[in-house]
Amino acid sequence: MSNSFGKLFKITTFGESHGKAIGVIIDGCPAGLAVDEVFIQEELARRKPGQSKITTQRKEDDVVEIQSGVFEGHTTGTPISMVIYNKDQKSKDYSHIADKFRPSHADFTYAEKYGVRDYRGGGRSSARETAARVAAGALAKQMLDSLEVKITAFVSQVGDIAAPEYTSLDITKVEDNIVRCPHEDTAQRMIELIDSVRKDRDTIGGVVTCVIENAPAGLGEPVFDKLHAELGKAMLSINAVKGFEYGSGFEGIKMRGSGHNDEFYEEDGKIKTKTNHSGGIQGGISNGADIYFNVAFKPVATIMQDQESVNEKGEKVTVTGKGRHDPCVVPRAVPIVEAMAALVIADYYLLNKSSKLQ
Amino acid sequence: MSNSFGKLFKITTFGESHGKAIGVIIDGCPAGLAVDEVFIQEELARRKPGQSKITTQRKEDDVVEIQSGVFEGHTTGTPISMVIYNKDQKSKDYSHIADKFRPSHADFTYAEKYGVRDYRGGGRSSARETAARVAAGALAKQMLDSLEVKITAFVSQVGDIAAPEYTSLDITKVEDNIVRCPHEDTAQRMIELIDSVRKDRDTIGGVVTCVIENAPAGLGEPVFDKLHAELGKAMLSINAVKGFEYGSGFEGIKMRGSGHNDEFYEEDGKIKTKTNHSGGIQGGISNGADIYFNVAFKPVATIMQDQESVNEKGEKVTVTGKGRHDPCVVPRAVPIVEAMAALVIADYYLLNKSSKLQ
Amino acid sequence: MSNSFGKLFKITTFGESHGKAIGVIIDGCPAGLAVDEVFIQEELARRKPGQSKITTQRKEDDVVEIQSGVFEGHTTGTPISMVIYNKDQKSKDYSHIADKFRPSHADFTYAEKYGVRDYRGGGRSSARETAARVAAGALAKQMLDSLEVKITAFVSQVGDIAAPEYTSLDITKVEDNIVRCPHEDTAQRMIELIDSVRKDRDTIGGVVTCVIENAPAGLGEPVFDKLHAELGKAMLSINAVKGFEYGSGFEGIKMRGSGHNDEFYEEDGKIKTKTNHSGGIQGGISNGADIYFNVAFKPVATIMQDQESVNEKGEKVTVTGKGRHDPCVVPRAVPIVEAMAALVIADYYLLNKSSKLQ
Amino acid sequence: MSNSFGKLFKITTFGESHGKAIGVIIDGCPAGLAVDEVFIQEELARRKPGQSKITTQRKEDDVVEIQSGVFEGHTTGTPISMVIYNKDQKSKDYSHIADKFRPSHADFTYAEKYGVRDYRGGGRSSARETAARVAAGALAKQMLDSLEVKITAFVSQVGDIAAPEYTSLDITKVEDNIVRCPHEDTAQRMIELIDSVRKDRDTIGGVVTCVIENAPAGLGEPVFDKLHAELGKAMLSINAVKGFEYGSGFEGIKMRGSGHNDEFYEEDGKIKTKTNHSGGIQGGISNGADIYFNVAFKPVATIMQDQESVNEKGEKVTVTGKGRHDPCVVPRAVPIVEAMAALVIADYYLLNKSSKLQ
Repeated sequence: MSNSFGKLFKITTFGESHGKAIGVIIDGCPAGLAVDEVFIQEELARRKPGQSKITTQRKEDDVVEIQSGVFEGHTTGTPISMVIYNKDQKSKDYSHIADKFRPSHADFTYAEKYGVRDYRGGGRSSARETAARVAAGALAKQMLDSLEVKITAFVSQVGDIAAPEYTSLDITKVEDNIVRCPHEDTAQRMIELIDSVRKDRDTIGGVVTCVIENAPAGLGEPVFDKLHAELGKAMLSINAVKGFEYGSGFEGIKMRGSGHNDEFYEEDGKIKTKTNHSGGIQGGISNGADIYFNVAFKPVATIMQDQESVNEKGEKVTVTGKGRHDPCVVPRAVPIVEAMAALVIADYYLLNKSSKLQ
Repeated sequence: MSNSFGKLFKITTFGESHGKAIGVIIDGCPAGLAVDEVFIQEELARRKPGQSKITTQRKEDDVVEIQSGVFEGHTTGTPISMVIYNKDQKSKDYSHIADKFRPSHADFTYAEKYGVRDYRGGGRSSARETAARVAAGALAKQMLDSLEVKITAFVSQVGDIAAPEYTSLDITKVEDNIVRCPHEDTAQRMIELIDSVRKDRDTIGGVVTCVIENAPAGLGEPVFDKLHAELGKAMLSINAVKGFEYGSGFEGIKMRGSGHNDEFYEEDGKIKTKTNHSGGIQGGISNGADIYFNVAFKPVATIMQDQESVNEKGEKVTVTGKGRHDPCVVPRAVPIVEAMAALVIADYYLLNKSSKLQ
Repeated sequence: MSNSFGKLFKITTFGESHGKAIGVIIDGCPAGLAVDEVFIQEELARRKPGQSKITTQRKEDDVVEIQSGVFEGHTTGTPISMVIYNKDQKSKDYSHIADKFRPSHADFTYAEKYGVRDYRGGGRSSARETAARVAAGALAKQMLDSLEVKITAFVSQVGDIAAPEYTSLDITKVEDNIVRCPHEDTAQRMIELIDSVRKDRDTIGGVVTCVIENAPAGLGEPVFDKLHAELGKAMLSINAVKGFEYGSGFEGIKMRGSGHNDEFYEEDGKIKTKTNHSGGIQGGISNGADIYFNVAFKPVATIMQDQESVNEKGEKVTVTGKGRHDPCVVPRAVPIVEAMAALVIADYYLLNKSSKLQ
Repeated sequence: MSNSFGKLFKITTFGESHGKAIGVIIDGCPAGLAVDEVFIQEELARRKPGQSKITTQRKEDDVVEIQSGVFEGHTTGTPISMVIYNKDQKSKDYSHIADKFRPSHADFTYAEKYGVRDYRGGGRSSARETAARVAAGALAKQMLDSLEVKITAFVSQVGDIAAPEYTSLDITKVEDNIVRCPHEDTAQRMIELIDSVRKDRDTIGGVVTCVIENAPAGLGEPVFDKLHAELGKAMLSINAVKGFEYGSGFEGIKMRGSGHNDEFYEEDGKIKTKTNHSGGIQGGISNGADIYFNVAFKPVATIMQDQESVNEKGEKVTVTGKGRHDPCVVPRAVPIVEAMAALVIADYYLLNKSSKLQ
């Protein structure tokens, strides 16, 4: 198990879907940061179930409690523990799958790796774990706020419905609709698609795009901890993620170098690039331009249909669709992507303090 | 700087393109492994420049010397130092770019981050650094060999020319042609494309696909060090990589859950999946099926054409194309992808020894 | 801040003396371990205040709650969160020292390092933090129990009253008296000394000796993570510790090599040493003999007397002795030393699984 | 194996006593530091064998070669590789102990842990490894020089001959005699003792004291990476070390709190302590006063006498004293202690850059 992330701004999460609580310890947040608990709660609200007709109708309040590391409203440099108690546990719901392996879930692999497993709602492998990331990320965002770094994620694709490129969008409008796509026409078509998939008792995948504005040049620790490598790992560690690309990404492979290269020019005493196929990162280090990347989410594995599978003894069984689940995970994934991005940038900001002698 | 990779099977690399040497220390390789130095040299030969008409015509011999950690042909459990001396340095070639920022290279970002930089051939940001990874990966491969794990990478796309899916290919034939694509017709078209791009004094991108066969179930350390997250980071840390996807990847987002889920069945006492959209990894842990993933490489930034840019003072300059460079990096990237995959699997194999009490 | 300890069996602690709670996340405990919650509580009872007339009369119940990672009585391989809520907070007690720096406490250094500090009872620097270590150590002990490794600490010195060498003692009798010294005569003199010091409103230091029996040969990770180096760090991280020595320690420097060397012999097919000046560790690796070491604790800094000091502005102030404090910390330090030793041995046992290929 | 030390200023060492080379990679040294190669070589000369009549008469030149990370005389932020080739290998000297376990050496434990071992001169367990630490430490010292931090170690005890307390000594005179004790009378008696022990074909232990002057307040990362805990681990990782104490150390346990506490006062706008039993560290964080500690070295295990032992089969054998060895290790240990101290302080200086938001 490896439940820690980050080098200097480091988090450690715990908790199962249907255990007593989930939570996180943040170790390494600098002292003196004013903590806005309301903001943390708001971020959790963006992730929580039951927030709209296209998300699961499960009700979880996700009230966070800070247990340490904050004194008189400011961080003290000591570890910050945040806990969210699980209230809507309903463990009985899960007895029907106690010994069954749900297709494309982690049931089988946890059983293989650990011998035992908490089968209630996926236990530790449940995406409920990401609430702890969002709480921690909210604090990282507050630190980045003081540095004027802005992180915005949004839904750029659902199924085969894709929004235009981010540079043509007004990404301050992400929260204007329930699918969190800042292009209203596309958003409506996405919502319709998700709704229709839901009625089919099925699920569908999508893409979350994230843009980091105003990150200082110099973030990234080559050769192995390049900024995009750490962002990639952060994103790939989120449940249901199948791919990561930054800048020109997979499309860029079709380009020629002469068209792909971002030429430098000088403006107002600052060195900039004319284009940004680099996605704001060159040689693994931020160059001051927008950092942007895409994260691919698969269709949710839990569907409201019968599926064939086996149980722990290898016997054929049927897994029946039950409960309340998301037809498409990406609208709720937006704050999770932002949280993980914020954690990486906060951490790399601190790491970069040691790059030069003075 | 962060030049170490891995948790238990850990490597630390050093060296600049035109310094005295590059090399690697492997710390944590278990004792008792028979070391085949010829194999290490063969792997380096697959990466070295000048191996065919579609790679750079630079000549580097890349002779590796083991300086420690091996006694009477076997690893002793102590750190293994491998060094490759730089012979073909030709530093003078680079005086013309000493104070210029080459477009889409790391010149500008290194200058921003560190204040000083070794401008000769890109210094530490040069892909020459990957030779050290290949040497270390060759040792990891030898360890995996003893576990019967097989890692095969190949070129699956150059520009817009793509090979069929890997399951329809005979991936033992990767070395049958110079582009390292095991589908002969596609390979010839790729070679023609690269050759034509080279004549245009330009470059083009591509995709390397990697397949890991016979990896045991249970590898992967949720929630942050999921197997695919670490593979993703490993790949994204390679020069010129812009994207990573595993299993169904970016294409999978268009599917419905009912079609995407991999149903389990039992065969010969083993639990398997009927399809493998999961890419052999569920919940971040290997399930015993083939692990496969794609790695996107951008077109090489060094082109044989004049480009506009600025120098360290922000003044407009022209960067002229000089020297000997790769028109397409993917054929030589194949052993690098394999090396990084081998390092991850070897490391995670050791980590998994602690998952259960007995 | 660095609130994590261990590499594979890793703990992260949080919490201030007078915050809402203190606690620990254990990440990396192997799956399948039967968890005895009563034993964890018993270990905490050995550390808790108010347990005898020679400890502080403060009352804290230290009831631990496991929030994750245990299912149906066994560890699942997922992170185990344990929390102890602070009940007896009495924050008002501390207003008189809010801006004063208590001599030989961490008040001044925390203020220098972090700018802000939680002054209530020392905040994070309070020894209350060690309760989390004891809870985590109790789990490590349960893992070691299954390997038949036995860890016993005891008080071997208070002031200048010292017990005979451990090899002449029956260390199963540690709990037979309140000072936790298994030599009854010495114990009574220690108790009298502590009692007299307490009446003087003063404090006194002491030594805890720890013996690890039946640890397998092979534990220790040279060259930097030698077993005794990690044990030393673990002990030195405990509040009030000023020194660590193992085997012959500081006394051994007066010996000649010919008398100090531990000659090997063979008995019942096992290779042993005739003497054990090595303290069971050679070259940083356990050799199968008893591991033993001493830990020096300074006299507690909180005394019931007036002391001169300065406040945050550098003005002269008087710090008055108030509250309920330990006249001598070593009796309550015994379970803490054992806990840290157990955490090291459990961690190094897991690390050693990777030393050989088979 | 664990051959890395440090968190941000991190070293990784390699090499066996009689292999091709030993060396170190320094990763994380800030860019822009002027590198004085002559100074590095001078530090190695202080450690090298054959430097005086009271050290081993073995001749090793220990010429260091920097292979990377330094460009035009300054560090570039990239990893710095330093290598020292082994010239005086004489492997044949060691055939007589190939299958024998030398008493109180690491032969037996390496064999137990790794199954195989390089028996030539102790292989990796040889103190020759510390030359790499001294080379790396010399660079850390250059960084600390620019911060005006001064680190001085000296021999304070040999056998039972001890120097007065460091505060009464002129520690700039350490290099004035061959035993490196800045108290001339004591030094002469130490030299006589070592000489007489050498004539007896025996060895003797000693203590190295280290003083760190002018370290800024604020260094140290509670609760586990307290400054003294990391210093303790650093020292305990050096060959032959058996104990570590800082400030009042083991003697302090006999004191009462009222006499042990260091009262604060203000002078010239700075807060200081009247006494320094704390050894410059309170709550694990430096307070700006002198940091000082003692390191105990056992008598060297290699003696010029016959000793009983067993071979790998457990058969009784005689180990005969051969070769050229140190009768007392402490004079040559002085630069090693300084090097490890410098590495810790440099690392913790960088870590402390993240303690506050601004």
